[in-house]
Amino acid sequence: MARAGMLTTPHGSVPTPVFLPVGSQGTVKTLTPDELKSSGVGMILANTYHLYLRPGVETISRLGGLHKFMAWDGPILTDSGGFQVFSLGHLRRISDEGALFRSHLDGSEHFLTPELAIEAQEKLGADIIMVLDECPPYGDDYRSIQRAMERSHLWAERCQQKHKRKGQALFGIIHGGTFTELRRQSAGFLASLNFPGYAIGGLSLGEPKELMHSMLDETVPLLSENKPRYLMGVGSPEDLVECVARGVDMFDSALPTRLGRNGAVFTKRRRYNIGNARFKNKKGPIDADCDCYTCRTFSAAYLHHLFKAQELLAYRLATIHNVRFIIRLMEQMRRSIMDGTFSCFKEDFIKNYRPTDAETRAEQKKKWLGARQEKHPENDVV
Amino acid sequence: MARAGMLTTPHGSVPTPVFLPVGSQGTVKTLTPDELKSSGVGMILANTYHLYLRPGVETISRLGGLHKFMAWDGPILTDSGGFQVFSLGHLRRISDEGALFRSHLDGSEHFLTPELAIEAQEKLGADIIMVLDECPPYGDDYRSIQRAMERSHLWAERCQQKHKRKGQALFGIIHGGTFTELRRQSAGFLASLNFPGYAIGGLSLGEPKELMHSMLDETVPLLSENKPRYLMGVGSPEDLVECVARGVDMFDSALPTRLGRNGAVFTKRRRYNIGNARFKNKKGPIDADCDCYTCRTFSAAYLHHLFKAQELLAYRLATIHNVRFIIRLMEQMRRSIMDGTFSCFKEDFIKNYRPTDAETRAEQKKKWLGARQEKHPENDVV
Repeated sequence: MARAGMLTTPHGSVPTPVFLPVGSQGTVKTLTPDELKSSGVGMILANTYHLYLRPGVETISRLGGLHKFMAWDGPILTDSGGFQVFSLGHLRRISDEGALFRSHLDGSEHFLTPELAIEAQEKLGADIIMVLDECPPYGDDYRSIQRAMERSHLWAERCQQKHKRKGQALFGIIHGGTFTELRRQSAGFLASLNFPGYAIGGLSLGEPKELMHSMLDETVPLLSENKPRYLMGVGSPEDLVECVARGVDMFDSALPTRLGRNGAVFTKRRRYNIGNARFKNKKGPIDADCDCYTCRTFSAAYLHHLFKAQELLAYRLATIHNVRFIIRLMEQMRRSIMDGTFSCFKEDFIKNYRPTDAETRAEQKKKWLGARQEKHPENDVV
Repeated sequence: MARAGMLTTPHGSVPTPVFLPVGSQGTVKTLTPDELKSSGVGMILANTYHLYLRPGVETISRLGGLHKFMAWDGPILTDSGGFQVFSLGHLRRISDEGALFRSHLDGSEHFLTPELAIEAQEKLGADIIMVLDECPPYGDDYRSIQRAMERSHLWAERCQQKHKRKGQALFGIIHGGTFTELRRQSAGFLASLNFPGYAIGGLSLGEPKELMHSMLDETVPLLSENKPRYLMGVGSPEDLVECVARGVDMFDSALPTRLGRNGAVFTKRRRYNIGNARFKNKKGPIDADCDCYTCRTFSAAYLHHLFKAQELLAYRLATIHNVRFIIRLMEQMRRSIMDGTFSCFKEDFIKNYRPTDAETRAEQKKKWLGARQEKHPENDVV
């Protein structure tokens, strides 16, 4: 099912499969546009939720739109804000009309409708924008997931009716949780609306990996072959390989950048915590095979020191490394797809790479969520 | 008295007057060596105190020395650690033998002697190193300042006897506070030891600006004309201009980088706080005349947004701007000295630049000191 393609946008073409680093607030945390470019990043994601609240979409529009605002001239995708609003928990109330929520910044009340989500995204001016959808948590029962899906369908239609901006593609989002029958219904309904691309929403929300894989096995074949397929919120090396193998073209996740700021760095065998004593005297780079600026310039011992000393440069250097690692992985997968050797590549990767085990993952997820809620719910900081 | 020269070190030559950004922990906060280079930085300062405690001078030595450790191939000057230890207040006790102090990191006890300061600096391997000196605060009486000066003289001799490393210059430090007679004695004594360069210590410690100027007027003419003169801890635009006019060649200060991290940015008229509402919608750069990466790439409105959103990129972009501002000021001064137009340049600068007034300066100093003591005494963070 793995495939290599070319995604064409008004701000340039991007080879797929592609990974989009997350720049929620109009900046991929710690990095400049130059550093993204030199890490091989082709496209980035920004969040309507964050930018709507601060600095405001009007402000960005007056300043010439999101590309100009953040000085990034490549393609941008904006998420609709749905996921962030539903993550607010008791701070929001949802009806068919839309979602009433309180800002995590100042408590002010806002009413997010499909129409507002489109208006905001038109003003930001990204190349690809997303419909507003309802994102129920993993574990909800069939009826709840079905009701949320039906609402998302209704909203998808309203988004499509509202969307007018030329040169901007509106993607639909397939829901249905982990219920095959619902996924089938959702794919069928959204296909009838003929969006230029489709995201698979409501996965990577804590369900077992095998369940995510089998849902992709069921859902991807229902999608049009000549349109991009986008899996939202996936970004660990092992997930990227498994999901490219299942025919997904686009991914986004804050994981590589957030892990970097926490001192967790990828290598092709496993990920390490740079604060570990084993790096205190390591003369060589984090990863001798890595071509990133950090590995070409500094010893692992230096990065270890910067983290211990809580120096701001630490967070950037680890982010550069992790982003380049993930981008290189995407490049390698694309090359092997073109060469017809992807299945070997995948087998090899999975055999050698030791993913962080499930328990640790769950713990970390909990820790992040806790830390986020303490500060502001969706605006993760170091 | 203003003069332009060339300072030659094993890691290259640096045109003077020169400003050294401060990289206490082996990193000029938020910046890579590449960014320092492209900002025109020729030489940097690192602190023996910080590096001795973490990661340890042995560690840095094993990793190939400080230049290699931080991937900076230009000249480095290390301060001896004296100033930091004396700033520890009740955490240290001083005798003729040396200074007993407790680490601000873990409370461990250390005894800093002139010999240890030299040993540590030899291991770090900077191009220029400093003698250990005692730094009494501004306001101490004549007798106290005299005793501290005499101890510093004793230590300067011991440092010189201990220092062996080839290709590394050991500078003496003139003391005597704000007492002309003591400054004269100190300059005379240190001249007899024939150091390759001289720092003027014990100024910029809160004394009125006029007093600092008159002390320079008294002290600089006592120094050998063919040796570099280094004023420690000075880095505001107006001070740099006034002190270059009085014949100083070298300066260091954490002020431009620290101000940047606090959102205070220099322009040739005054400094601004980028968080101020006036920047919320400003399409142009912070300073239309500035050639730094930040001003060439981003609007003031974007930088304003990054600061409001507490994005890590904010601290870097403001630091780049401030460092470039100061370096450009040094370049302009050097050029005008060579052209014979320095006095016009100075007059013009002083006429147009509005320094932050004395009261605000004192308040800020207090605020910084307070913030520093809350966390760790000398390791300023954002």
